[in-house]
Amino acid sequence: MDEKGISQAVIGRLPRYFRYLGELRDEGVERISSQELSELMHVTASQIRQDFNNFGGFGQQGYGYNVEYLYREIGKLLGLDKTHHLIIIGAGNLGQALGNYMNFERRGFILKGIFDKNPDLYGRKVRGIEVQPMEMIERFVKENDVDIAVLTIPKTGAVAVAEMLVANGIKAIWNFAHVDLNVPEGIQVENVHLSDSLMKLSYNLERYSRMKEKE
Amino acid sequence: MDEKGISQAVIGRLPRYFRYLGELRDEGVERISSQELSELMHVTASQIRQDFNNFGGFGQQGYGYNVEYLYREIGKLLGLDKTHHLIIIGAGNLGQALGNYMNFERRGFILKGIFDKNPDLYGRKVRGIEVQPMEMIERFVKENDVDIAVLTIPKTGAVAVAEMLVANGIKAIWNFAHVDLNVPEGIQVENVHLSDSLMKLSYNLERYSRMKEKE
Repeated sequence: MDEKGISQAVIGRLPRYFRYLGELRDEGVERISSQELSELMHVTASQIRQDFNNFGGFGQQGYGYNVEYLYREIGKLLGLDKTHHLIIIGAGNLGQALGNYMNFERRGFILKGIFDKNPDLYGRKVRGIEVQPMEMIERFVKENDVDIAVLTIPKTGAVAVAEMLVANGIKAIWNFAHVDLNVPEGIQVENVHLSDSLMKLSYNLERYSRMKEKE
Repeated sequence: MDEKGISQAVIGRLPRYFRYLGELRDEGVERISSQELSELMHVTASQIRQDFNNFGGFGQQGYGYNVEYLYREIGKLLGLDKTHHLIIIGAGNLGQALGNYMNFERRGFILKGIFDKNPDLYGRKVRGIEVQPMEMIERFVKENDVDIAVLTIPKTGAVAVAEMLVANGIKAIWNFAHVDLNVPEGIQVENVHLSDSLMKLSYNLERYSRMKEKE
């Protein structure tokens, strides 16, 4: 299997497959055809087969996929069979909200540290973890084998902080700062631009009302 | 201009154009060619032209686009020349974080109300707005001309709450609940599935290390 050529669009759909398969598994479903999965997920069966073929097809037989096997294999691809160590940079509302979100831990994403540049927040606890000064990051990342940094700071300064994180060995950045980061090859970035998402919703809302007016 | 056929992929790129054009405008740049914009945004000039052609092209001339005009027109498409009234359903960490995020208001998204089913939270204030019981939503939506609901509740119950919101006149749902909502045609939904995003990051991290191992 050559993963290099797999598009980010395909990869972006893997977590959704994983979610639906997990629910099927919890319901005790043992096998499912691409047709049944297609109806459940509102995507075409051919897209499902094409997506899965990127990863070797997962042993689709005449009678469909083995749910447990498919769930486990997609989970492995997503790295969920391993533990990842996270730090949060920016202990504001959003950083605290993400820190308090228990579900990530259930998937093996373990919050190890929280950092902020605001001294008023030092020592404040988020899920039992004390907020530390930014200056502690370098040592902390080394000692705690941290691979993912969650960036929940304003866009000013985010680019510089991302560079500092990469220089200190961070391999992946989950970026909530409203700016596009420029990182070296081999460093993974996943952006969650909340304003962009809200604007897209607003566009669709306005488009619908523009279309209704025309009718 | 027929907006009906414009794909969600194109629409999803509009906020990013808007962001870059806003920055250019703030820097005093008056005109920009698709080539210059392309280098800045790391997308091809032909994609930019194709995207813009969906909306009539925005008067690209030999010497490029008028930044101010383009910024304003894309803003109008995104509905940012209007005011939208929001309510947040779910006053937990994430709901509070989004409620406290000032930037949305600057774009015309005005938070009007916050609701939760947990009585312990009633009366607690988020940016001066008191958390109210869910039972108040029906009357509140009518009296406050609310068009967007932000759903920050756990996935259990989210589908039923979304149905109740739609029945009460909500036209758009910004969905943070980790479940796909099934809404009638004409109701807009934009999902922010945070776990999916983290898993995609994790996939890319693992893929890179798998590729390195093979080398």
